[in-house]
This record gives sequence, structure tokens and C-alpha cells, in this order.
Amino acid sequence: MAHPTRIAVTPGDGIGPEVMAEAIRCLEVLRAKHRLNLEWTRFPWPSHAWHQEHGVCWPQDALDQLREFDAILLGALGDPGPADDPERYLLPDSESLAPLLALRKGFDQWVCERPARLLKGARQYLADDRARDVDMLVIRENSEGEYVGQGGRLRKGTPDEVATQVEVFTYRATERIIRYGFEQARLRAEDRVRQSRTRTFQTHDGRVCESQVCLITKRNALGHWGDLYTEVFETVAREYPDVATHHELVDAACMKFVQSPWRFDVVVASNLQGDILTDLAAVLSGGMGVAPSCNLNPTDPTVPSMFEPTHGSAPDIAGQGIADPTAMLLTTARMLEWLARKDPALASAGRELFDAVAADLEQHGGTPRGTHDIGEAICKRLQP
Amino acid sequence: MAHPTRIAVTPGDGIGPEVMAEAIRCLEVLRAKHRLNLEWTRFPWPSHAWHQEHGVCWPQDALDQLREFDAILLGALGDPGPADDPERYLLPDSESLAPLLALRKGFDQWVCERPARLLKGARQYLADDRARDVDMLVIRENSEGEYVGQGGRLRKGTPDEVATQVEVFTYRATERIIRYGFEQARLRAEDRVRQSRTRTFQTHDGRVCESQVCLITKRNALGHWGDLYTEVFETVAREYPDVATHHELVDAACMKFVQSPWRFDVVVASNLQGDILTDLAAVLSGGMGVAPSCNLNPTDPTVPSMFEPTHGSAPDIAGQGIADPTAMLLTTARMLEWLARKDPALASAGRELFDAVAADLEQHGGTPRGTHDIGEAICKRLQP
Ligand SMILES: CC(C)[C@H](C(=O)O)[C@@H](O)C(=O)O
Ligand SMILES: CC(C)[C@H](C(=O)O)[C@@H](O)C(=O)O
Repeated sequence: MAHPTRIAVTPGDGIGPEVMAEAIRCLEVLRAKHRLNLEWTRFPWPSHAWHQEHGVCWPQDALDQLREFDAILLGALGDPGPADDPERYLLPDSESLAPLLALRKGFDQWVCERPARLLKGARQYLADDRARDVDMLVIRENSEGEYVGQGGRLRKGTPDEVATQVEVFTYRATERIIRYGFEQARLRAEDRVRQSRTRTFQTHDGRVCESQVCLITKRNALGHWGDLYTEVFETVAREYPDVATHHELVDAACMKFVQSPWRFDVVVASNLQGDILTDLAAVLSGGMGVAPSCNLNPTDPTVPSMFEPTHGSAPDIAGQGIADPTAMLLTTARMLEWLARKDPALASAGRELFDAVAADLEQHGGTPRGTHDIGEAICKRLQP
Repeated sequence: MAHPTRIAVTPGDGIGPEVMAEAIRCLEVLRAKHRLNLEWTRFPWPSHAWHQEHGVCWPQDALDQLREFDAILLGALGDPGPADDPERYLLPDSESLAPLLALRKGFDQWVCERPARLLKGARQYLADDRARDVDMLVIRENSEGEYVGQGGRLRKGTPDEVATQVEVFTYRATERIIRYGFEQARLRAEDRVRQSRTRTFQTHDGRVCESQVCLITKRNALGHWGDLYTEVFETVAREYPDVATHHELVDAACMKFVQSPWRFDVVVASNLQGDILTDLAAVLSGGMGVAPSCNLNPTDPTVPSMFEPTHGSAPDIAGQGIADPTAMLLTTARMLEWLARKDPALASAGRELFDAVAADLEQHGGTPRGTHDIGEAICKRLQP
């Protein structure tokens, strides 16, 4: 028998374990139904709980332990609560979230993919009816940029303090993420053709394309990397004459996400600007409860990619059984599709899970239901 | 006779001169009506036009020429169009917008104030009716941070390129902007009491306050300055026990601006994060056409502050007479109120202009009208 596809399951903190429980139930149903050669191992870290016992969020050899898996399915980490409420801060964010950044970095998960598609039944925050058609993919550079952690604090804590934060951008990481964006744009166009729901985008010289990539920068103020991004974008774009291109400044992009989100297809942004835009995109697709996310390494098959919903651990609603597991389940569906590169049987399981989640949302969206009720309803749909 | 209050009028590019023409008409009406001791001088720079003739956007002694004025009223600069349409780029943004950043820096206009209040008649982009009550003031640190322009490009244009962008934050600039935020929160609470429209905000320990300051950072990823901001915020907050405090990460803040903007009062953010949040806030208050802005130096009375709408020069609609002058007029109203520190008679003129703009919007908002029609309708309201 072939080697099984192995998943490291890390439920994490807060609502993480609650939404993960539903993901595991769905995976169990799919495995039994399709006799999938799929295994998973549950880890009690990274987490606050592990920290309380060991004084650190995870063991020293955590990355080594995880390396042999084909994917990491993560619930949520940390406490995104307010800084001025010490009771809600068991650990400073910087410590409890460090594993997240360490995983992205350690396995060079250089793509963060966050689709924002408003499924039927999901909450619509915008007044304009055309916003029902939101269907974009935000691709966030996930390996460098604003997140390198460089800089420091000189004369810390004194009135003469100077804090610096250094952003570092390389040609190579810029080129690969922009190229990835164009490839995804092509794939999305092909998918739409298959599903007979073609979209068109106009280029500036009047040509009509079936997909678009919008580059985000703030090059009128952050010119050093803004110019690098722009130049690389223009170079790579020449290889994709079938894809329309567009450039938005990050401030204008936030505005246009709210004013006319239906105009976007693929959006490529830096680490921080991508972080900001994906939270906004999550709202456009119905809120954090339904926003999937993944951290991919498309170039090195020997390291696991990581699948985690966009939402955090939401300590304010943890333990109440009311967290929406939809984002976690859509994330799990994306993981199965991704793992099809190892075991093609997983592709259809992934699509099945996506379809079940979408059907559930269409039928019940808007009705308040508990975490477990939603998971159960989706499992029922999956049952043979 | 006392020295007149002197305004440097710089219409700029694109729709700048069009909306400025309406501001000047309103100022003329107000001056005649109240015999205001007010003068203005029009400058053909900074602008593209000046650049075409002289090869630079403004004369070398521009700052010296402007220094003797009490305020600068600016239309709009530059071309925020797409990077990939060379025809629309007369000048690279970095060049045409440089005067804007040079003015903010040259006169140490360290506060950028951008109120976002949804006036009756303005377009409502959000579906939730509670968003009718949006009334926040975003205060952007305007003198340092991400905008210091430091860093560079190593091995430029090669596959080995490394671009760096250095963010610099000082204790002093952090302290003054946070303190300014708390002062504004108090003033807003007092104003609301006067107008019998009190709002309440809860602190984390359950106390009820009449105003709130929300600090924005991304301290879980950009820790060096995030921690500095957080520490200074906590220190300054102790002096304002009557003001509720709150801390949001910039990504979550963008989400909450769309999901529940009515919960915010005063928001304090860094230069870049403030830039992003104010574009979003502009949408919440009805769009760029109605979003005022100002760049203030509250500490040095010998240099002018600068008043410019949040919007850019909008070359795509320039010359058509369809730009909405509302943002420009609200900005002009704010300028008059600000100048009341020099000449108290200007305060009521500022309020009068604000009220006329608000009344016009309430009556005609939603009806498509030209730039001039809107200006004329407002002038009529101002006439004795
Ligand atoms: C928790 C935090 C460090 C993280 C990020 O900024 O990347 C989160 O906001 C995300 O979007 O995954
Ligand atoms: C034009 C640009 C440099 C400017 C900024 O980023 O400050 C603008 O977006 C603004 O908000 O005033």
C-alpha cells in the first residue's frame, strides 16, 4: 500500500479546538466514504496550554516534528484582544503568535492565499447589490517585507527613544509571488470557462482579457520597494499578455474594496499590505467566520504547507460553542485540494467538502446556530 | 487696522483648480458678508503646469514664500492613475507629490486630522443602518514613521536586488500625537454635551466614559514601534481617566471599520496605517467627494498649517466639471475654524460654511450635479 498522506493537526487556542473538532469530523466522514489513504496526528502545541506547563509555546524540535507531515492544519493561535485588558492577555501576542510566523518562515511558505468569494447565504456588509458578485483571490507575500522583524529600540523607554523597523524586499521573492499571481489568474480564468461564468477585464489599451492581476504598493510614499514591485510586475506581465494588469495604491485599494469589490480578480500585495487587505476582503466575503486561508510552499515538496482560517482565537467567544466553523471547513477543503498533488483522490474529497459547506451556508446562512450544529449539518451532507 | 489673515491658495492639478474655484467663491461671499479681514494669494505651483514650464514642480524658495502665510489651502496634486498607463502619467507620482510631503515636513505639520462623519444625504456604502451614525476622527501621525523615505535599493534591477525601507519612530513624536488624540477626544465629548448628543464608551474595567481613543498598531508583527506606541499610549492614558481607551491591530481595525464603524470615536494611527484607515474612513463618510482633511502644526504658530481634501487630483474626471467640491468646502470650513486662533471672527464663518454644506448635502445628496452647481447652491445659502 502507498504511503498515507499525513496531516499534523494543531488546534491551538481559544476557538481553535472547537472549530477543529468539526473539521476532523468531516475528514472522518470523507475518509470512510472514499477509503482515503489519509492519516492525522494531533498536537497539543503550539498553544497557551503548552506554555502554561512548559514555559514556552512549543517544544524546541517542533519544526522537525512537523517537517515530515504533508500538511499542517491549524486552528487558531494567540489572543487578539485589547492591549489594555491584562486579564484577557494570558501571553503577549508577540509570544503566542511567534509559532505562526516561525512556521511560515521555517517552511518557507511564501504564498498566503486568501480567497474572498461571497457565497450565497453569507452576510453581506455592503449596501450595493453588485457586491453579491465578489469573487477575488488576494495573494499575500508571506516570506519577507515588513515582517522580517529587523530594527530595534534605541534609548528604550526614555523621551529620547528612537524605534526603527526595517522592511526588506528581495527581487527573488518579489518575482516569485508576482508570477504566482499571474499563474493563479490564468487558472481562475480556465475554471470560469469550464463553469461557463466568464468575466472580462479591460486593459488600458482597450483589449479584453478573461482575468486580471492588480498589484498593490504604496510607491508614492514607500518608493524603494514600491519601485521594485512595480518594475518586476511590469516585467513579469509581459509574459502574460492574456491577463489584464492594474496597479493600486494600498490606501485607494482599501477604498475600492468597499466601493466596488466586484471589479477585482487576483490581487497581489506585500506581507503587511496583504495582511490588511485580506482582513478587509474577509469582511467582503461575509466576515471572519467564513474566510479561509492557507500558507503555501509551492516550490519545495519536502516541507508541509499550512492551512489556517484567517480568523484568530477569538477569546471573547471561546468555550461557548458559538464559533462559526465555516472558515475552518473551507480551509480544510482547500487543504485536500492542495494535497491532490500527492494523492489525486483527495481533489474530489476537497470539492465535495467545499460544496457541502456552500450548500449548508446557502440553506441556513443567517440562522444563528452553534459550532457543532453547523459541523453536524455539513457531515450529514457528506454522508453516503 | 489689524494685520489680515493671509491664505496661500494652491489649486494644484486635475480637479484641484475646479473644486478650489468653488471654495474661493464661498470665501468671497463670507468675506463680504462679515467684513472678514481675510486675504488670499493664488499660486500656480506646485503643479504639473509649473513643471512643464520649469522642469520642477515648484520654485526653489517655495517653502520660504509660503512660510509667511497663516494657512495653505491646497486643491490636489499629482496623478494617482494606474502605473501601467503611461499616457496618464505626465509625471511620476513620486515627483508630482513630493511637494505635499515636503510641505508637511517643512512646516512640521505633525497632525493629520481626518474626520469621518456621515452627513445626511451622503452616500451610505454599508448595509447596516447603524452605520448612519458614523462619527469618528482619525488622527494620523504626519511627521515620521513609515514616511521618512529612508532605505534604498542594493543591486538595483538585478535578480540579486535587495530593497529596504526603514521606518523611524521617536518617543517625542509618538507622545505628542497620542496626547493630541486624547485632547481631541475631550473636546469632542464637550461638543457633544453642548449639542445634547452624548455618546458613551465602556472601559475594560466597566466604567462609562463620554469619549474614547483607539490606538492602532501592528504590534504582533511590527513589534519595535508597536511596543513603543503601546507603552506611550498607556502612559498618556493615565492622565485622561475620563477617556476610554482601546487598542486595535490595523488589520482588525479595517475589518471593524466596515463591520461596526459606529463604535469608534477618536482613532490614532501611524503615518502609513493612518493613510490606509483614512481612505477607508472616507468611504464610511460617503466617499472621497465629501472627505475633508488637514495637516496641522498645533505647536508652532509661525508656520502655516495646510488644508487639503483627502481626495487626489482625479485626472480621470478632471476638466469635465463633475468633481464634487464638498470635500474641498468642508476642508475650507475647517481652515476657517482653525484660523480662529488668529482672528476669532473666522470661527463663526467656518461654522456657517460647514452648516451650508451640510444643509446642501441633506437637500440634494444623491442628485447628480456639476461642480459649479453645488458651489453655487452653497454660496446662495451663505448670502445675506
Ligand atoms: C497573527 C498575525 C501575526 C497574523 C499576521 O499578521 O500575519 C494574522 O493577522 C494573519 O493575518 O495571519
Ligand atoms: C499622495 C500621498 C503621498 C498621500 C499620503 O500617502 O500621505 C495621500 O495618500 C494622502 O493621504 O494624503
